[in-house]
Amino acid sequence: MQDALLALNRYWTEQGCLAAQPMNTEVGAGTLNPATFLRVQGPEPWRVAYVEPSVRPDDSRYGENPNRLQTHTQYQVILKPEPGNAQELYLGSLRALGIDTAAHDVRFVEDNWASPALGAWGLGWEVWLDGLEITQFTYFQQAGGITLDPVSVEITYGMERILMALQGVGHFKDIAYAPGVSYGEAFGQAEYEMSRYYLDEADVDTQRELFESYAREARRMLDERLPVPAYSYVLKCSHTFNVLDARGSISTTERARAFGRMRSLAHEVAGLWAARREELGHPLGLVESPAAPADPVLSPAVAEQDDAGLAAFALEIGVEEMPPAEVNRTAEAVRLALEQALEATRLGHGPVTVSASPRRVLAVVERVEAHESDHEQIVRGPRVSAAFDADGQPTKALLGFARAQGVEAGDLVRIEHGGQEHVAVSRQVRGRPAAEVLSASLPGVVTGLRSEKNMRWNAPGLAFTRPIRWITALLGERVLPFRVSTLVAGRTTQVHRTAAQPSVDVPSADGYHEFLAGHGVLVESARRRVLVEEGALRLAAEAGGTVDLEKYAGLVSEITDLVEQPTPILGRFDAKYLDLPDQILVTVMRKHQRYLPVQDEHGRLLPFFVAVANGSCDHDVVRAGNEAVLRARYEDAAFFWNADLRTAPADMKRKLALLTFEERLGSMADRAERIAAVAGRLAEAAGLGEADRGTVERAARLVKFDLGSQMVTELSSLAGVMAREYAGRAGEGGAVADALYEAELPRFAGDALPGTTPGALLALADRFDLLAGLFAIGSAPTGSSDPFGLRRSALGVVNILRARPELAGITVDAGLAVAAEYQKVTPTAQALEDALQFVLRRFEQQLLEAGHGVDPVRAVLPLGAAPIRAEGTLAELESRLGSPAFQALVAAVQRIRRIVPPGTEPLCDPALFEQGAEAGLLTAVEKVRAALDGDTRLDRFAEETTELVGAVERFFEDVLVMAEDPAVRANRLGLLAGVTELADPVLDWKAVN
Amino acid sequence: MQDALLALNRYWTEQGCLAAQPMNTEVGAGTLNPATFLRVQGPEPWRVAYVEPSVRPDDSRYGENPNRLQTHTQYQVILKPEPGNAQELYLGSLRALGIDTAAHDVRFVEDNWASPALGAWGLGWEVWLDGLEITQFTYFQQAGGITLDPVSVEITYGMERILMALQGVGHFKDIAYAPGVSYGEAFGQAEYEMSRYYLDEADVDTQRELFESYAREARRMLDERLPVPAYSYVLKCSHTFNVLDARGSISTTERARAFGRMRSLAHEVAGLWAARREELGHPLGLVESPAAPADPVLSPAVAEQDDAGLAAFALEIGVEEMPPAEVNRTAEAVRLALEQALEATRLGHGPVTVSASPRRVLAVVERVEAHESDHEQIVRGPRVSAAFDADGQPTKALLGFARAQGVEAGDLVRIEHGGQEHVAVSRQVRGRPAAEVLSASLPGVVTGLRSEKNMRWNAPGLAFTRPIRWITALLGERVLPFRVSTLVAGRTTQVHRTAAQPSVDVPSADGYHEFLAGHGVLVESARRRVLVEEGALRLAAEAGGTVDLEKYAGLVSEITDLVEQPTPILGRFDAKYLDLPDQILVTVMRKHQRYLPVQDEHGRLLPFFVAVANGSCDHDVVRAGNEAVLRARYEDAAFFWNADLRTAPADMKRKLALLTFEERLGSMADRAERIAAVAGRLAEAAGLGEADRGTVERAARLVKFDLGSQMVTELSSLAGVMAREYAGRAGEGGAVADALYEAELPRFAGDALPGTTPGALLALADRFDLLAGLFAIGSAPTGSSDPFGLRRSALGVVNILRARPELAGITVDAGLAVAAEYQKVTPTAQALEDALQFVLRRFEQQLLEAGHGVDPVRAVLPLGAAPIRAEGTLAELESRLGSPAFQALVAAVQRIRRIVPPGTEPLCDPALFEQGAEAGLLTAVEKVRAALDGDTRLDRFAEETTELVGAVERFFEDVLVMAEDPAVRANRLGLLAGVTELADPVLDWKAVN
Repeated sequence: MQDALLALNRYWTEQGCLAAQPMNTEVGAGTLNPATFLRVQGPEPWRVAYVEPSVRPDDSRYGENPNRLQTHTQYQVILKPEPGNAQELYLGSLRALGIDTAAHDVRFVEDNWASPALGAWGLGWEVWLDGLEITQFTYFQQAGGITLDPVSVEITYGMERILMALQGVGHFKDIAYAPGVSYGEAFGQAEYEMSRYYLDEADVDTQRELFESYAREARRMLDERLPVPAYSYVLKCSHTFNVLDARGSISTTERARAFGRMRSLAHEVAGLWAARREELGHPLGLVESPAAPADPVLSPAVAEQDDAGLAAFALEIGVEEMPPAEVNRTAEAVRLALEQALEATRLGHGPVTVSASPRRVLAVVERVEAHESDHEQIVRGPRVSAAFDADGQPTKALLGFARAQGVEAGDLVRIEHGGQEHVAVSRQVRGRPAAEVLSASLPGVVTGLRSEKNMRWNAPGLAFTRPIRWITALLGERVLPFRVSTLVAGRTTQVHRTAAQPSVDVPSADGYHEFLAGHGVLVESARRRVLVEEGALRLAAEAGGTVDLEKYAGLVSEITDLVEQPTPILGRFDAKYLDLPDQILVTVMRKHQRYLPVQDEHGRLLPFFVAVANGSCDHDVVRAGNEAVLRARYEDAAFFWNADLRTAPADMKRKLALLTFEERLGSMADRAERIAAVAGRLAEAAGLGEADRGTVERAARLVKFDLGSQMVTELSSLAGVMAREYAGRAGEGGAVADALYEAELPRFAGDALPGTTPGALLALADRFDLLAGLFAIGSAPTGSSDPFGLRRSALGVVNILRARPELAGITVDAGLAVAAEYQKVTPTAQALEDALQFVLRRFEQQLLEAGHGVDPVRAVLPLGAAPIRAEGTLAELESRLGSPAFQALVAAVQRIRRIVPPGTEPLCDPALFEQGAEAGLLTAVEKVRAALDGDTRLDRFAEETTELVGAVERFFEDVLVMAEDPAVRANRLGLLAGVTELADPVLDWKAVN
Repeated sequence: MQDALLALNRYWTEQGCLAAQPMNTEVGAGTLNPATFLRVQGPEPWRVAYVEPSVRPDDSRYGENPNRLQTHTQYQVILKPEPGNAQELYLGSLRALGIDTAAHDVRFVEDNWASPALGAWGLGWEVWLDGLEITQFTYFQQAGGITLDPVSVEITYGMERILMALQGVGHFKDIAYAPGVSYGEAFGQAEYEMSRYYLDEADVDTQRELFESYAREARRMLDERLPVPAYSYVLKCSHTFNVLDARGSISTTERARAFGRMRSLAHEVAGLWAARREELGHPLGLVESPAAPADPVLSPAVAEQDDAGLAAFALEIGVEEMPPAEVNRTAEAVRLALEQALEATRLGHGPVTVSASPRRVLAVVERVEAHESDHEQIVRGPRVSAAFDADGQPTKALLGFARAQGVEAGDLVRIEHGGQEHVAVSRQVRGRPAAEVLSASLPGVVTGLRSEKNMRWNAPGLAFTRPIRWITALLGERVLPFRVSTLVAGRTTQVHRTAAQPSVDVPSADGYHEFLAGHGVLVESARRRVLVEEGALRLAAEAGGTVDLEKYAGLVSEITDLVEQPTPILGRFDAKYLDLPDQILVTVMRKHQRYLPVQDEHGRLLPFFVAVANGSCDHDVVRAGNEAVLRARYEDAAFFWNADLRTAPADMKRKLALLTFEERLGSMADRAERIAAVAGRLAEAAGLGEADRGTVERAARLVKFDLGSQMVTELSSLAGVMAREYAGRAGEGGAVADALYEAELPRFAGDALPGTTPGALLALADRFDLLAGLFAIGSAPTGSSDPFGLRRSALGVVNILRARPELAGITVDAGLAVAAEYQKVTPTAQALEDALQFVLRRFEQQLLEAGHGVDPVRAVLPLGAAPIRAEGTLAELESRLGSPAFQALVAAVQRIRRIVPPGTEPLCDPALFEQGAEAGLLTAVEKVRAALDGDTRLDRFAEETTELVGAVERFFEDVLVMAEDPAVRANRLGLLAGVTELADPVLDWKAVN
């Protein structure tokens, strides 16, 4: 271990880094060291490298877990500004550690880093060594909420992982730390004791006090304009927060509030630091702006070359590893941009094809003509009437125009424009050579590149998902030089970094794909996909199984766009892990490792997987590495699993009392209790059968218990999943276990809805409680901030109710009202109304997104508290909208609603009738009322009102509502109000158009 | 800087050290890192090296001071067990840093390290590089109050100092930290800001709360048996304490209490750690016991050699650098031990001379005879009367004796013993060869070595001031091998470590001194002293000055015993520093640097000094180094001086309000106010003249103001001295300035007493306040604990009063009573009595130590509250003790005191007289009373009572005191009581013998 640290120190100081020391207060990561957090601010250059023993109380495992330590050793490097070749420098450091980068599979896998507590983010990668994440590599974009300029590269090595891999040991304790001293011998006791402290013993009240004291000192120091001590107290806040978190004493609200405070302090610190550095005159100097090369001049040979033949054109944009999701998107964007650029020229060309791999986009335009076509250019001058005087002599206007155009008056022609005759200049313009046309068009294609999430690097004017590092542009065999920011297009491309010759010159645009393929780079994703799929099936077959390519199509796509030369390798894991639930095993393989699971013909998992490496490597080395990684991850999962299985669900649930949900709304245990109560009431309201009621009752008693499990504490995405597993194994019936799982559904957009009535009821109760509670305390989401996921919850309520007709007895407003009864803070009527409107707006949004028209959706929204009915009415409305009868109905109702003032009583006295139409209408209304008997559904209403519509029309033909006699007038309005009384509950008629 | 740290890392890991990381909480020194503090406990081996950025809030100087930083960089090495050659390894590390150890003057200068907060101590050295302390080198004896076994070596490098010296820069900011980045550029801002925090901004209340929280957590973790987290909280306590201290918010009591708490926690931590390591089975194994060599066998050639000639014998004991005070003491001890050992043999020899240098003791015995003298050995048997029966035949007793002695009965002789004739065996015993005799005697000489303060090292059975590393023993040219612990005597000695050949073989005991001198080692201190003195004078003369060898005789002695080959070198300093008071300049030269000051013929300081290096070196290099050191120290002093001069005394005094003196007794400002009030009252009581009263009044207003100065904050030994300087410069009169200085006198045993009445009054007031206050709150000294120096204060009171007859109007009890009036906690009568008795006991002790008899001292002690009078009486008493007249007086008074019950009223009625002697006595008594008129001085009493003695004697001859008539008896006792009434106040007669 110490040799490795020494080797890194040596390597990076040789690269000009200052060797700094770890921070002398507990920090969770090297990023927090002021040598990073403060120094990335401002315009001063900075290169630094240091060891950072990083304390993560949450990772405490008593030294038992082979891969987790409460203090692990980071090695941190900052290069400011990013030097343009940080990946290569990094690979050099691996070689300095004795890692044969050609034998191993070293990969840069998308990882966007963000630290909410620090207001910091950056884009970059996890670096994988044979599937093992050994380094975090980030282009720092913001820190302390301040956009960084210049951008720094942060490289963070996880030393224990690297050394376990290098030394081939399975437990951190077995790492040889110094000659003759193992890691465990040296630090095992501290691991155990500090784990005890962080997990079991730290005094929560004391830590809360410490947090406040530290925050107070930080605040005071900011007021004194002393960012350095202020920051040290921010760090102490952060560690204290982490201790409280490890003790399970941080609620969602507390977390949000603490993060908010720390973020705001960190923001001020960063700003103040930058300001102080400026006041100090930037002692380290200023970063030099990147040298912008001169705009290349097309050599006459290229520019003027008059080649009659057609040539292929190729444009390659070399990028540091793009996220897989960006690979095809970028290819498409380049295709579009290139086509548009070409359209704006007169250059003839054949088809444009664009393909992409993680590190490059390659556009090829076939059959580009040597020149644009020639064309005539007309410049319009004054009208003829103004160009010549009465004598037919040229006026001053004409002469001025001719002079300005550099022609003689006699050279002017006449053209027609807008029905007027003008003088004009006509020139024959010769098409530019292809090289010139393309050179001018291409910069925009590059500068216009954007992705979902963009970053800046040391290239002014560019912003993209990852840095663009090279550009090639070849027309046939000729280079088309153009400049974009600091880059000049040439013919040099980069192939695999571990190749003997990583930089190679491309001879010609023709055969570009094959040239790259010859260097092991497959730019066409279809070719890569074939290699992945065929390889996976072949290897799985060797293991006696198969890979479900359909099920894992998304994963295959991802893998395809993670590598330039897919190299599938079969690995295996210990069959004992098959005892873990499949969902855990697959989640780990898929999400964490991008391995394809291997299964038998019955779909049962086999203890094998297919990993896909990039390019040539030593398969045995890479296999062993990947197997070790999976083993470590499964060991971790098994640790939680076994620990949890020793704990009864009821015992786990007791831990919920320690988890504050929201300060004013109580603990997570309080919340679970409320959910149980609300679920009971909803079950009653919905008139559930006895069996379902029993299930609800039992499940309600355990609801959310798995939040007290280690697995969910660790992998929160498994909430519900683990509840089902653990409840089932603890002897709860399947219905109860399912209900506990379904209580969490839907967890994200597109997630499944509860499949059973009890599950749906619990899920509703959960969400009603959340909405009622948070609105009660005035914590409705604002802007982009929705820490409790209320938007998701609102949609969940709507979609569950839409999906379950048997729960039609439950409306949103009623559900909220029931939940309100159990809140620690009783919501006001206005708060409940706000909550309802909040849900309805989500519903409206969803209906619109589903393609329904704005007006029909508005028309049925008043029914939205019963979503299933609103949806039914919407369908009915849409189906009737075209019908003349319905339009007549609508017209009738709308006409009446326009006349009748709101609040008019639907009463009339036949004695005051003056026209027969009045009595006719009254009869029709009463008939409809009797027929509907309170039914407000649109279909019934539309059916029963056919006669009424006629009666209304007649009424308006014969009767003047606004009679002079006030009594008569009032009587007529009362008569019409009888219609609105029937129509209003059906839908919002004024919205129907 | 970073290259130096890398070089040390490389060097020490090559020596088998584990490379550890700095502690991740603020620590004041590398020693506090658990890699030292915990690891030195217990029997496991441990070698570790690490950087420790050490935070000393007190050293904050806003980055302005060239040599002080709130965070300086230590490099720390622990070698456990101490390897026997740690000094050599250390010198190797200096060479690894690029230091030419032959050119520089590298010295190991006594420094005994102790950390009261940690309950730790050790013996060792500061390592000086050309007078600059660059390293602390310690043999750890205790940590956490636990005696360490095995002993570890701790080596702590001060990196900034080393690099300033290596790079030849005068300010830490100018150190090149990394290529192109200076220390100041990299860390200047942090220095400034953290200084601001520690000195000015840290919130005192918050820090106090933090201290309590941390201590509480430490306590709890100890109860949970978790030493590692407990220790981390002890460290946090320690840092918090240091912050409070830097803020000037720690009173003496608080300091004592906080240290007590931390020490006790650290003690428990250490014990618990050791216990836990044992429970864990000592994961790092156990230290191997040092290999004890076999006892050497005297080869027959040596043992039996029968050489008739006389030979010199030499014994050299090689030691790592002894403290100078131990050098002569050890030589003397070895001489004594050797002579005693020789006396116990029959070996004839000439004079024994022993000389010593820091690294060796060399004993030479001249003219040792080849053999002990032969002698007759007599073994006494039974008395002749029992040895032969009546027939003159041998009895069984005789036969048994002869058999036991292995002789024939006929070989027995007769001897006389105790007046009886015995049979006996007489043998002629041949003296052993000198080699045998000496080999047997010498081990005890070595094992018996002890110093004032002893240490253990990796040599069982030995304990001395520093490790003993080699022994030579030569008889003539022959080695006399013997073993002591792990050492075997030979002929190899060590000369200068930087010599080409540091180990050399000594050819012969003859000429041993010259042999060593030939290698540059002068063992005789007289020879060294000559070199120091002559060199100093010569060099001073070169600078146009001289060195006051008489004044600095003690310093010369110290220097003489600091080196083996004195090499005086003349250095100079900038004359601008001569503006500083001499006392500061000389203190720095003498105490801190052991330089001899150079002065002109008028005794005025010149800007020169003489440093004395050890052995050959590059004089220019060493001179430059020493000059830089002095410059740095003067710069430091000038910084304080100038800062203080900008502050008016009254403003400095305001800072006293921030210094808590004692929680219950208020701030230092409160105390100063009390001193002022008490001084005023005492001035009144003493009847001071107007001028003195004015001086007291003015000085009282400022008393102790210099505690608020930076100089005194830094160098507390200058309290009073700086008051005089600053007050004088602030325009106070000389009398006031002197009084302020004298108020602090005496500061230590043997220190001067105040020289003026106002000064004496202030000093008394100070001490009365201290005593009254501390006794009021029950904080009398206990055992060895006397944090407020009450013993010294009590003696101060006594000695000031003894020295100043004009203050005879002030008694100790009265002074205490006055001081009591102003205390925040009013002392009880008992407390004041206790305080008085406490003072009297000190007085008694002092008188006894001055050689006065126990009885006379006891006799005058009742007068001790007026020491000057007690002392006068004592002298009087002692001068009269031999006189018969006085003895008669004593006898008379004692006789009366024995008879008269205490409390008897001195009344009598002449009407009841029955004998003439009664009336005679009454007349005599009344005459004495009239003559003395209340004077109770012994001389007057003795003079006036000549007649009274005769009257008493007559009275006892004639009168039976115990008459049968009670009235008569009472009358006679009343008459006698008239005598005791007069005698009792004079002294305690019963103690006079």
